[in-house]
Amino acid sequence: MRFMTTSDKPENTATGIAAQDWATASADPQYRAAVVDLLGALAYGELAAFERLAEDAKLAPTLEDKAELAKMASAEFHHFERLRDRLTEIGEEPTGAMDPFVAALDGFHRQTAPSDWLEGLVKAYVGDSIASDFYREVAARLDGDTRALVLAVLDDTGHAGFAVDRVRAAIDAEPRVGGRLALWARRLMGEALSQSQRVVADRDALSTMLVGGVADGFDLAEVGRMFSRITEAHTKRMAALGLAA
Amino acid sequence: MRFMTTSDKPENTATGIAAQDWATASADPQYRAAVVDLLGALAYGELAAFERLAEDAKLAPTLEDKAELAKMASAEFHHFERLRDRLTEIGEEPTGAMDPFVAALDGFHRQTAPSDWLEGLVKAYVGDSIASDFYREVAARLDGDTRALVLAVLDDTGHAGFAVDRVRAAIDAEPRVGGRLALWARRLMGEALSQSQRVVADRDALSTMLVGGVADGFDLAEVGRMFSRITEAHTKRMAALGLAA
Repeated sequence: MRFMTTSDKPENTATGIAAQDWATASADPQYRAAVVDLLGALAYGELAAFERLAEDAKLAPTLEDKAELAKMASAEFHHFERLRDRLTEIGEEPTGAMDPFVAALDGFHRQTAPSDWLEGLVKAYVGDSIASDFYREVAARLDGDTRALVLAVLDDTGHAGFAVDRVRAAIDAEPRVGGRLALWARRLMGEALSQSQRVVADRDALSTMLVGGVADGFDLAEVGRMFSRITEAHTKRMAALGLAA
Repeated sequence: MRFMTTSDKPENTATGIAAQDWATASADPQYRAAVVDLLGALAYGELAAFERLAEDAKLAPTLEDKAELAKMASAEFHHFERLRDRLTEIGEEPTGAMDPFVAALDGFHRQTAPSDWLEGLVKAYVGDSIASDFYREVAARLDGDTRALVLAVLDDTGHAGFAVDRVRAAIDAEPRVGGRLALWARRLMGEALSQSQRVVADRDALSTMLVGGVADGFDLAEVGRMFSRITEAHTKRMAALGLAA
């Protein structure tokens, strides 16, 4: 079943967890494992994002543009630090928690290395937006302490605004650029989804938490609905950017 | 002549400048030009260092090591931000101030791309140390406001301590690694000096300030002595690290 309905296990419903602090919530080993997975995945995600943004900054046509992407990279690094420090704080070895997610995230970045500056910008913007959506989705399912951390990191995202201006200007200047970038944005989303499915299939505790509770066998359909919501938000953003996906 | 000796121009001696604030000191257009050059060179130096450290972080054998180098990179980015913001504050266009130094700094990094993690570590440490020495040398020749900025940035360097531990451990484990890294450190210093000489030859106002005062024709020998001091400090550090240069 998907949600706990019996009143004798209120701590297992999403509402129950949200009302608890970490000390109480983490007494459930499955919840604890899920949060360790989540923090590990987010931490490595931020570290990998740092690395790729710094790499993509090389494609910048001007020093000003380079500095903007470098600023995003540096922000991602600070997110990484907070997530890693939290893992240490709860007695987990950060590297051990990140390891299970290295292959999926590296795979994503390997498959989506931008071939020019505009692709790099679209990737920075799409990555930032999907990450925000995911942080927001997951925050509601967390205990108060972990939620506060996730929301604090989320609060510091959104450095990709400059990317929107640049992409818009490029499409205005040469409309057929839009078609190419629309395909690129679609590929980014497709690759993100396929790597996420891989993680979902591998990490039971994390996936179960993502569907809204620690349950005896989680519902893949609910994970699918979460991915759908994120994909829809992505599609709307791309359309607003002039990239009909 | 090298130092102003006439008492009617005290603002032109190093002591005179050091006792002044930016508003007073910058009334001298040659001093102003020198500081704009200096801030431009340092700003681009930090931005390039960010980029290369982030790149070299890829060579890290573990996630922990990667995070350490990424941390240095992120610190360099914040130095860049302070220097760039200062240029804006004094009414200069940062890109214009940085442009004259792009070729030399890119040249340095192109000639010294590490071929493995240990070379990357030695480069991070050597770069950090030379930068500190240079910041310290130059601080004494600056007006109070500019000096405060340079010292604040200097204060936040020294993130390369972990590199020393790692390099030492690698040499202990396999002593002949030391010979290869000693050659590498020598090449780094040689390349740094040759690019610096290029800058000195191109940028009169900056060079003149570096020798201790705004003078009518600067003394290359004094610049040479400054480079010698930095080289000696480098040699001592390398010896302490087990890398007899």
